[in-house]
Order: sequence, then C-alpha cells, then structure tokens
Amino acid sequence: MKLSELGEFGLIDLIHNITDKLKNPQQTSWQQLLVGIGDDAAAWQSDNHIQLATTDTLVQDVHFDLNTVTWEELGWKALAVNLSDIAAMGGVPQYALISLALPRELEVENVSQFINGILPLAEEFGVAIAGGNLATAPSVVITITVIGCSKSKTILKRSTVMSGEQIAVTGHLGLSAAGLEMLQGKISLAPETSTILRHGHLQPMPKVKEGQILVEQGVKSAIDISDGLVADLDHICKSSKVSAKVKVEQVPVHPLVKANFPNYEQLALYGGEDYELLFTANKRVIEQVKHALNCPVTVIGDITEETLPNRVTLVDSKGNVIPYEGRGWEHFRNEILEVKFA
Amino acid sequence: MKLSELGEFGLIDLIHNITDKLKNPQQTSWQQLLVGIGDDAAAWQSDNHIQLATTDTLVQDVHFDLNTVTWEELGWKALAVNLSDIAAMGGVPQYALISLALPRELEVENVSQFINGILPLAEEFGVAIAGGNLATAPSVVITITVIGCSKSKTILKRSTVMSGEQIAVTGHLGLSAAGLEMLQGKISLAPETSTILRHGHLQPMPKVKEGQILVEQGVKSAIDISDGLVADLDHICKSSKVSAKVKVEQVPVHPLVKANFPNYEQLALYGGEDYELLFTANKRVIEQVKHALNCPVTVIGDITEETLPNRVTLVDSKGNVIPYEGRGWEHFRNEILEVKFA
Repeated sequence: MKLSELGEFGLIDLIHNITDKLKNPQQTSWQQLLVGIGDDAAAWQSDNHIQLATTDTLVQDVHFDLNTVTWEELGWKALAVNLSDIAAMGGVPQYALISLALPRELEVENVSQFINGILPLAEEFGVAIAGGNLATAPSVVITITVIGCSKSKTILKRSTVMSGEQIAVTGHLGLSAAGLEMLQGKISLAPETSTILRHGHLQPMPKVKEGQILVEQGVKSAIDISDGLVADLDHICKSSKVSAKVKVEQVPVHPLVKANFPNYEQLALYGGEDYELLFTANKRVIEQVKHALNCPVTVIGDITEETLPNRVTLVDSKGNVIPYEGRGWEHFRNEILEVKFA
Repeated sequence: MKLSELGEFGLIDLIHNITDKLKNPQQTSWQQLLVGIGDDAAAWQSDNHIQLATTDTLVQDVHFDLNTVTWEELGWKALAVNLSDIAAMGGVPQYALISLALPRELEVENVSQFINGILPLAEEFGVAIAGGNLATAPSVVITITVIGCSKSKTILKRSTVMSGEQIAVTGHLGLSAAGLEMLQGKISLAPETSTILRHGHLQPMPKVKEGQILVEQGVKSAIDISDGLVADLDHICKSSKVSAKVKVEQVPVHPLVKANFPNYEQLALYGGEDYELLFTANKRVIEQVKHALNCPVTVIGDITEETLPNRVTLVDSKGNVIPYEGRGWEHFRNEILEVKFA
C-alpha cells in the first residue's frame, strides 16, 4: 500500500503501534514520559519541571513556494509553527535547533535572509538558537526543533477534554488560508488588505503568552489551529474520546476574510495555519480566561459524549446539522500529507 | 555567491555570526546556554544537570542510496548518527523526535521497516520515541533530534583541547568509508568481509557508554568521527585554537580495510562516518581511560601550540611531514555539503 492510500493519520497510528513495542517501564526515559506521540509537543518530567520538545518541517513546493514567499518570511514561519506547538502545551520555548537541507546552487544571501527572518521571533520569546545541521538536497527542506518547559506543574494536553465543556478559540480564523488563496493568484485585493493577508499566512504570531495564561487559569486541554478548526477539533476529540458540536455562525471569521472571500466559512473551518489556540474548559474557567487574555476569546460550541463516525458536528443557528461535503476537511487538504506527532 | 562557493564551514560561520546578534544575557535561555553552535550537541544548564540536544539529517541520494541500503539500515543509521553526537558530549540520550519527509507513492511497508530499524538501538540506549513530524516531499529527507543529559557535572567539548595533550581514538578507522566504496561497486569481496563492511557503513554502533566513561575519567575534550579523522581533528583544534601532529603509522586502520583496500590510509584519515570517539587528555588520564574502556584506545599524536594555516600535520615514523594533496580532506569530501552545528 502507498502512503497516499493509507493517509497521514493511518501512518501516525502505524508508527505509534511500532514504537509502542519499545515502551519499557524499567527505563527512565519511558517512566518520565508524560506525553508521547499524538500531541502538539512531547512532554516529560525533569527534576523540578516539565520539559517540552516539538519539531516541524517545511518542504519546498509542498508548504511554500519560493516564487511567492521571501526567505525572511520563511524563517519567521518555520520558527513560528514550532513555537505555536509549545504554546499549545502552555509552555515556555527556550532553545531551537535549525536543520536546513539546501541546494548547492542556492545564494548564500538567501540563507542570511532566512536566519534574519528567525531573529525577531526568537528575540520576542527569548529563544536561543543552540545549533542545527546543514545538508545538501535537491530542494529546500527546513526542520526546526524547539525545546522548552512548563512554568506550571501542568500542561495543556489533547487527551483531557471532557464532555460538557465549552469549546473556545482565540482571535479570528481564516486569514492564513485566505492569504494563501491570494498568494496563489486566485484573488486580487487592495494593497492594505493584501499586506494583512500575506502577513497572516506567512508571519503568524504564535500564542505563546496566551497558552501560558490558559494553564494558569486552569485550562487543561488545547491544540493550536494548524490543520484547520474542524480537523484540529477532531484531533483533540479523538485523543479524549469525546465529540464536539460547533455552532458555525459563532466561529470568529476574520472580518477581512468575510468581506472579501465568498468561501469565508470554508476558509475559517477547514483552512488551517491560523495558529490560534483552540481549547476547552467549563463555563466558569472560560469566563476567567476571557478576562485574563488580551485577545478575543469566542465560545463556538460544546463537547459532548462520543458520537461516531463523525466526532465533529456542525450546526446552524437553529441547531440543525450542516453536513460537510465528501470527506470534509481530509478531502479539503488531501494534497498534503503533513502531520505533527509531537 | 552560491553555497557551493562559500563552503560548509563558511556557511556555519555566517549563521553563527547572525544568531550571535540575538545573544542577550538578560534572557534565561542565553544565560544558561553552555555550548551553542559549533559542537557535537547543544548544552545548557537545567535545574540539577546539563541538558543536551542534537539534530542530524540524512538526504536521499546525498547520504544514502535506496538501491544499496535497506529501510531497516536507514532507520538504524539515522538514529545512530544522533546518538553518536550525544556520545561525543559524554551524555545520556533520552528522547528522540523523528521527522520524515516522504514521497506520497512510497510503500507503507518501507516506513514500518524504517521504524523497526530504529527500535533495537533505541532499546539498547533507553531512548524513548517521543514524537516527530510527517511531511510529503519529492524525495526522502530524514531528520532525527535526540535530547539527553549529562550524568556528570561536566561534558566533553570541542573547545577545551590543550597544547601538550595526547590525541587518542577508540576502535578502528576506515571501515565505514571502505563499506561505502564496496556498496558503490568499486570492489568485490568475500561474503563475510562484505557483511562486516556493510555493517560498518550502515549500522555503526555509537560509543555512548564510552563517552560517559571518558567524562568519568576526567577527559574534557572529544568529538565523534563523522567527517573523517583529519577533518574532525581540525574541528576541535579550530575550536580550541591549537594544532595537532598525527603519526600516521599509529592510526588504527581496521584490519579488513588494510587487507583489502590499497587506499586504506586515505579511508582511515579522511573517510569518516566511523563514529568512533576522538579525544585528547594528558598521558595519565589516557592511561586510565585505556583500563576503563572495553574497546581499543590508540594514541595517534599530540596537541601543539597553534600553527596556521594547517592545524593538522601528518608525520611519518621519522617525524617527517607528509603533505596532504590539494585541499586535503575538504577536497576529498567536496561533493557533500553537510555539517553539524549541534
């Protein structure tokens, strides 16, 4: 069977099943592992705190097109997607390792621009560039690993969602996917709008401080929106063996997306790469979070007992189920095999 | 300027110079960073111990040829090269993150074989597979990150070599490069010899326990032999601002290489990928190490005050300098841009 037939999540399950054979309670590493394959980042108990590690890869012509992205933007995004995974655990990013597989005929200046694109984000979040690796390759493949820790005794996990909790999301959705459609030339927009959309897709700001505040306020479960709202909600529901009901009209679509894209609902529900935080908690905690965070927090639905095969149900304002077409979000993203398993 | 013109070490210096701008003694990560860009692994001070992290990439048709390597062997090697970097710091490997960029038409079975190739090594050294990432790519790119710690208060560094110390190496050299020549069809050998050479190139055993013993015995400086004896000796001399004199006849060439390859000296000096440990210490410490280690330890020369431009001088049994041709080891390996910066 080909990878494309098995699909990304089948492949993750397969890898998980094989590595599970290794699990050995006699070995310290396994004893101390708190979160392995299947969350935004790996987590393990160290002396006085919880350690976190995550890795993410960007592949030329799969995740980015050098005709539409600058090397500075690429540097920013490559670090941002990793910081977002640490944010989704409520952690503090500390160190980054940068692996670059690059064609020999690439201009040195482009590598400088790439590293310069990383600097402002690294500085903002106090991340030290501790090392990495360089290799020759036919096309560009960027893998960054970020290591961090939790300031609290707890972290945000995918597997702790409880039936009866509310579902909330930070910020607005759809900007990144709309930015991608624009970069692909599908739509032409006014310069100011265009700049905001480009920025939304290529220079997302990971919600690192927000993730830490969620932990402080007693939130236990979160994920960052990288695959898309519905897909990521499905991930945490699957991990927690629950289901979710989303009131589509409450989903906070970015106003510029709503104003300019007829398919704005699709972009917000399935588009992904907004790097906002999707989290669940009881009503009281969510109210506290709204006061504690300096960004919009919108309740978009509720967690329910597990319903199969579809864990995520979309409903309209009257509570009527809105079917998603075909394979839904998997179909929407089926050109990309890409999935995070830590 | 193209990357190929600047060369790998020029590119490392460039990245190091840019990221140095970030260094901020007010930020905890930078305060606690003990070893950044330019060693086998990054190291930082955690609560009660030193943390280590390293990453290494294998690229299809650059580092391996799917026509001559099995997926199990690839899994082994991809983890081994990272464990070897932890070994070269004298550390204990703990967690691995596996990033795979794979073509969609790849057989699922190959991924299973790859992961199965990782298991025995991970089990041997108590490494938990904590997560990773999957992405689509036109050809295979494997990046593994290993995170570990030091059991001691100290680690092995590249920058602590002192003039007057002896240079020693574990095991025998040249087997991996000889194995590569064999796999490339340059030579045909008896089946038993062939198996050992293949194993030497594709399934090296990282010297993890040996590295830990070096630290316990008071060794301060080491590097693993990945780029080749002369290249790696040059790396630690450059980091420490010293030079080295190597008695070529004392270099422990693997007997099977000596017996079957007329260019055995070249293979042992420049071939690389043996993943033995190259270390320096005073005579007394080296004697202790010989007793403490369960593998051959050979003294191959001495560290001297810095001499430029060539830091590594090769001498024959009478002390006469043996010139290395052209650009020496850089020339020998100039088809590959690959370098570790942590």
